[in-house]
Amino acid sequence: MASMARPEPLLTPEAARLLVHLRDGSARTRSELAELSGLARSTVAARLDSLIETGLVAVSTNGVSSGGRPPGFVAFQPAARILLAIDLGATHGLVALTDLSGTVLDLESTSLDIADGPETVLRWALDAAELLRERLGRPASDIVGVGIGLPGPVEHSTGMPTNPPIMPGWDRFDVPAYIRATFDVPVLVDNDVNLLALGEHATVWRAIDDLLFVKVATGIGAGIISGGKLQRGAQGTAGDLGHVRVPFTSRTPAHGDVDADLEELASGPGIARALSAQGLQAASSADVVELAKRGDTRATDAIRQAGRDLGEVVATCVNILNPSIIVIGGSIARADENLVAGVREVVYGQSTPLATRHLTITESRAGETGGVVGAATMLIQHLLDPS
Amino acid sequence: MASMARPEPLLTPEAARLLVHLRDGSARTRSELAELSGLARSTVAARLDSLIETGLVAVSTNGVSSGGRPPGFVAFQPAARILLAIDLGATHGLVALTDLSGTVLDLESTSLDIADGPETVLRWALDAAELLRERLGRPASDIVGVGIGLPGPVEHSTGMPTNPPIMPGWDRFDVPAYIRATFDVPVLVDNDVNLLALGEHATVWRAIDDLLFVKVATGIGAGIISGGKLQRGAQGTAGDLGHVRVPFTSRTPAHGDVDADLEELASGPGIARALSAQGLQAASSADVVELAKRGDTRATDAIRQAGRDLGEVVATCVNILNPSIIVIGGSIARADENLVAGVREVVYGQSTPLATRHLTITESRAGETGGVVGAATMLIQHLLDPS
Repeated sequence: MASMARPEPLLTPEAARLLVHLRDGSARTRSELAELSGLARSTVAARLDSLIETGLVAVSTNGVSSGGRPPGFVAFQPAARILLAIDLGATHGLVALTDLSGTVLDLESTSLDIADGPETVLRWALDAAELLRERLGRPASDIVGVGIGLPGPVEHSTGMPTNPPIMPGWDRFDVPAYIRATFDVPVLVDNDVNLLALGEHATVWRAIDDLLFVKVATGIGAGIISGGKLQRGAQGTAGDLGHVRVPFTSRTPAHGDVDADLEELASGPGIARALSAQGLQAASSADVVELAKRGDTRATDAIRQAGRDLGEVVATCVNILNPSIIVIGGSIARADENLVAGVREVVYGQSTPLATRHLTITESRAGETGGVVGAATMLIQHLLDPS
Repeated sequence: MASMARPEPLLTPEAARLLVHLRDGSARTRSELAELSGLARSTVAARLDSLIETGLVAVSTNGVSSGGRPPGFVAFQPAARILLAIDLGATHGLVALTDLSGTVLDLESTSLDIADGPETVLRWALDAAELLRERLGRPASDIVGVGIGLPGPVEHSTGMPTNPPIMPGWDRFDVPAYIRATFDVPVLVDNDVNLLALGEHATVWRAIDDLLFVKVATGIGAGIISGGKLQRGAQGTAGDLGHVRVPFTSRTPAHGDVDADLEELASGPGIARALSAQGLQAASSADVVELAKRGDTRATDAIRQAGRDLGEVVATCVNILNPSIIVIGGSIARADENLVAGVREVVYGQSTPLATRHLTITESRAGETGGVVGAATMLIQHLLDPS
């Protein structure tokens, strides 16, 4: 696989710098583009020609003529190419085809076990992609990028999982090489929470430079946007909130009197353990979600306490990162608003006024397709943003 | 002041994009510059002419001719302009003039009380700048930027301190307007720890994208470099480690059994309180430094414990930010290596192997001029980096 030729880039950097002025979806004239880009009209014309040739931009005449001949509006064509977006969790998989604006065109989902290993799981994803592609009636050559989210740490530069705790068989597996044997296009891999942060930022909070996305499900992790950019850290493990130690003073008696990792306390399985100790039948995130949806007050109380424990760590994140938006997502947050309520209770109670005066803590709006939208967002930035 | 015309930028963006290829100090030929920049030779020639006109670049002939006429090497002239760099702490002030590579040309320092208010303190700094300028024999018009570090939170976009706890009279004071009445050039203001991080990054760890600089003195704060850039957060309060709560399980008995802010435990005054409780004469950072330098083992033990307390919070920073370098500076770190030793003990003891495998924890190499070098670095990025 290593000897495989790198696929051609979709765009030259020059074309990308012009396209940026059309990506908001507005149709524009050549004069407007010259003004917006600061480029000479001859340069705009040449770059537009190359964009029109690729099909990424098309000439339209749906503008009002300013005096005789049609003004020749041009517009970005997000449907000219498609992206393959794959979101793999511990127990679920979602595969979508999107256009170049990140709109989901069609999707397939399944229950799976990530521990079945990369070849089994990725084979399912590639088969699902093939099914979707046929359903849409698009040739394979229309797929210009593959984005994948995995439930563990990923070395983003190589696309390899590194010591993922819940993914036996995946450590240092060359995910991009495996995918490129089927789709010879750029393949980007990242931690699922980073993609949730990217997707929520791109679709809901685009103007915000400092955002923290926290996911609470089987595990707990965060995606960090600072200075407008996703920050992965030196080895791609930034946002590992699950292994932050929580002081035992915030604990309910059921948890005992020792420090604990946040994940032991506030993840789905952590909440399930607290409920089991009270005699309830609960072993997993799904059980906790089920009990909460039935309105069991022992479950909603335990989720509230998990929110407080999470709040202890989020308060520290507020001091360290000074975000303006904190978004809480994942199955536990979706199941019961007490999780976010517990976070708010602690963070607004103990952070400095300066850091919380303009701070919003809110639930994710992305829903279950957040992961694939995030994977598409990552690809769009890679393929279309001027570098 | 608000009506004052904005000073002209030192460089056009186009000239900055060419100058970038000379900023490492190497003399280069026009052909080399055309190759490095990807620009046409005619474009390189035109941009070089404008750079030579400003004096920022000069033609030299100290290259070997490749066939007859001298090859006409050109080189960056960092001494063509000077920068005014001001580092204000709670009890000290340092004023330096540097060249455009950040080299300190001359400096003045004093003891002061930041609580004397902005007009008194900034007047001293401006008078010191005037003295230095005369000593160097440079006209005021050679000063092209002023950079200032303050010991509290600063709204970087306006240069105004915001609710600084130890700086009465400074809240929302328009520092840039006050300075521009004397030097009508770009004036940038930032938190002192951010500048220490910038300076250490630029002079020692330039190739590192993820660095955390922690200062331990009268207060405790951190400067965060993520993705190669200083991250200030939404309101400029990122890196506020001093107000992170530390669980009391890590405490020595002297501290009692309640949670505490890190600054109460591990700052200079916090360590002094622990020593007072043992009957020593200690009230300030300076007293702690003095005792440690005399080799008092009660002082070095207390600094070791402060390092452990700091380590609890730094370990959380490692999980959240995944830096590859953590630099510890400030007067307490300079006084005794037990501070860094205590941090290492806790961080390597409790962080995940993936996050610490490639992690270096080290003392600052910047010394007492770190703040002014950082202020110059901030200015150089603002004035010379292509935006």
